[in-house]
Amino acid sequence: MTRVVIIGAGFAGLNAAKTLANRPGVEVLLLDRANHHLFQPLLYQVATAALSPADISAPVRSILRRARNVRVLMAEVRGVDPVTRRVDTDAGQFTGDYVLLGAGATHAYFGHTDWEAAAPGLKTLPQATATRARILLAFEQAERSDDPQSQRSWLNFVIVGGGPTGVEMAGAIAEMSRYTLARDFRRIDPRQARVLLVEAGLRLLPAFTARSSARAQRDLEALGVDVRLGSAVTDVATDSVTIGGERIATRTIIWAAGVRAAPLAQSLGVPLDRAGRVPVTAGITIPGHERVFVLGDLAAATDPRTQRPLPGVAQVALQQGRYAANAILADLRGAPRGVFLYRDKGQMATIGRQRAVCEIGALRFGGRLAWWLWLTVHIMGLTGFRSRASVMLQWGWSFLTYGRGARLIIGREGR
Amino acid sequence: MTRVVIIGAGFAGLNAAKTLANRPGVEVLLLDRANHHLFQPLLYQVATAALSPADISAPVRSILRRARNVRVLMAEVRGVDPVTRRVDTDAGQFTGDYVLLGAGATHAYFGHTDWEAAAPGLKTLPQATATRARILLAFEQAERSDDPQSQRSWLNFVIVGGGPTGVEMAGAIAEMSRYTLARDFRRIDPRQARVLLVEAGLRLLPAFTARSSARAQRDLEALGVDVRLGSAVTDVATDSVTIGGERIATRTIIWAAGVRAAPLAQSLGVPLDRAGRVPVTAGITIPGHERVFVLGDLAAATDPRTQRPLPGVAQVALQQGRYAANAILADLRGAPRGVFLYRDKGQMATIGRQRAVCEIGALRFGGRLAWWLWLTVHIMGLTGFRSRASVMLQWGWSFLTYGRGARLIIGREGR
Repeated sequence: MTRVVIIGAGFAGLNAAKTLANRPGVEVLLLDRANHHLFQPLLYQVATAALSPADISAPVRSILRRARNVRVLMAEVRGVDPVTRRVDTDAGQFTGDYVLLGAGATHAYFGHTDWEAAAPGLKTLPQATATRARILLAFEQAERSDDPQSQRSWLNFVIVGGGPTGVEMAGAIAEMSRYTLARDFRRIDPRQARVLLVEAGLRLLPAFTARSSARAQRDLEALGVDVRLGSAVTDVATDSVTIGGERIATRTIIWAAGVRAAPLAQSLGVPLDRAGRVPVTAGITIPGHERVFVLGDLAAATDPRTQRPLPGVAQVALQQGRYAANAILADLRGAPRGVFLYRDKGQMATIGRQRAVCEIGALRFGGRLAWWLWLTVHIMGLTGFRSRASVMLQWGWSFLTYGRGARLIIGREGR
Repeated sequence: MTRVVIIGAGFAGLNAAKTLANRPGVEVLLLDRANHHLFQPLLYQVATAALSPADISAPVRSILRRARNVRVLMAEVRGVDPVTRRVDTDAGQFTGDYVLLGAGATHAYFGHTDWEAAAPGLKTLPQATATRARILLAFEQAERSDDPQSQRSWLNFVIVGGGPTGVEMAGAIAEMSRYTLARDFRRIDPRQARVLLVEAGLRLLPAFTARSSARAQRDLEALGVDVRLGSAVTDVATDSVTIGGERIATRTIIWAAGVRAAPLAQSLGVPLDRAGRVPVTAGITIPGHERVFVLGDLAAATDPRTQRPLPGVAQVALQQGRYAANAILADLRGAPRGVFLYRDKGQMATIGRQRAVCEIGALRFGGRLAWWLWLTVHIMGLTGFRSRASVMLQWGWSFLTYGRGARLIIGREGR
């Protein structure tokens, strides 16, 4: 029996487990510190009160219920030895004939780790519900205050990073303040809220074409978002952010910049790249350890056709998960593995109601069509009928009423 | 302009605010420490992963958006002076011509406040999601363990209190273990989970007739619940509960016993009853302070027709909220107030799939019809189309698949 240990039930790990499900001669152990698979592309919708956590996540064991050769264990992985393929966890040690690492990434603070407390990122469900509470609470605090200066600082929202997450967050907060909350307050006018999107580079969505970047910026500005390009954040505090020389009073800073691989990579004892990722071979394994695969955001993989790095998107992780599983099955058959070739299915980002940008092959388009395509692709990507139906219901209701169904302040921030 | 300060946006406070909405000459300030109204009768469904928090709650300001004379403020009330009608909060002081207190209740630990940490109650959304995490995590911990004794203690669930919440929790956990989770684990068999319902009195659902109590017990036992009547809990620890002389190893204790009024009552400087509630007049005001109303679970009210205490149920709170608002409007017209007469619309509790008990007037029935009626009444009671549609969707899906859509471990317990 060939034993495969998979670390992480994200797009890569889950897809690898699904590909190995019920294959004779293979036994899979899937480890994750959470009990659920998260559909990360919609995480910003939880952070902006449009969807509930349960809408974009599903229990890993329930997804793999019928995979009789897969065992799921909720455990925190502490380290992996690529030589012995031993995995250390808080639930014991496990050794695999193969080990697949898909532990993902967090945001990078470029050496300013102390900024994280005032400007948390958006990678997990607890972070999303905490961000939701912070945004909603800012409006409540502004309403409670009778000092115009304090009100203003509560109504300033600063998003750092102009990638898809930053663009989507900025658009969603702008829409929430202009439509959803507009008539709910008596003392403040939520439409006066100022949403600032700060990007160090010279355009938004750097992975897209310049035309799509310009379109996204135009759409955000039409929603009232203040887009600052070529602006580096030089300081972050609980009550302000400094951009270049300018200090902006704000109580809500959301970090959506940079990528830093999960700390697990450091336990491997192999050289890492600047973002803490593991450089991998054309077969997405650690050089010299062909039975240790590194997948998704944890890997620094290169397209062998173009020599360009593969982007940190769901499609790369999904395809790498399937590739790694098939490579193991090929080994068992004594067949050659082949190299990993990423099939680019395109990319998209949504800016707000009926506004999005899509790039599929040579096609580049935006506006209403792009937005509907974005909706369709994301609903199809969700796991399970219940989630799809629930998300369609919430989105349909929001589309008709401009409402947001999950305006809940729960947790420490909201008592 | 007559100023009305309402404390608490539960059934009582919210209904009072709705009754006063847009009435000329009246200005309302509604204070709550949360930003949402909670449909408490379905809280146990969040705790057992059937519904999401957003399904059973709605933002207070959004509900009252069109009530132009109502101002909603998220604030923690620290004290109320019935003489000056001054309300102290963490957002400042407010004085009302009338004050309505509807701050609700928590569970009572009968002098053992130290039991709360190991056996938390179920009154708020954070408590519900924490309970959900504890229940789901218990199965995960059992699966991680290879010690049969430890597994057993993780699979023992003890619910203290045989009122509606205790009965509903016991039924839901039993169903979850027998159906929803049955095939999701490899090492443990969730159907082996033992659900213990402990009640100090001699029957379950003491507010119901003996026949309904017997029926609820029979239905629970058919689901495999171990019902212990006349059993007082004598000790609670993180790894066990002691009932009479017997010590039962368990890692999950859920407290659903007793009622204790919110501590706010103590700030009034008036005599309180044993449960910390404020005894009120036939006009549900504090004796000697006819412009200070006490509503819902915070009040010890008596039915003037029977001299019996009014039960702590949603209908009493709803009707008291409306009564207090109408009494104020009567004062403004110079009309007499009349006394508060509770109109009993009946009571119901659900035990599990297609099992419930209903008592409406002289009618007493159980089984499938009672269950469907329970479903209908609770869906109708929810605020807003979105919640109703979402709950119908989740329930429909659960009914067909035995699944539970919100099996999420989030928060401190689940990292």
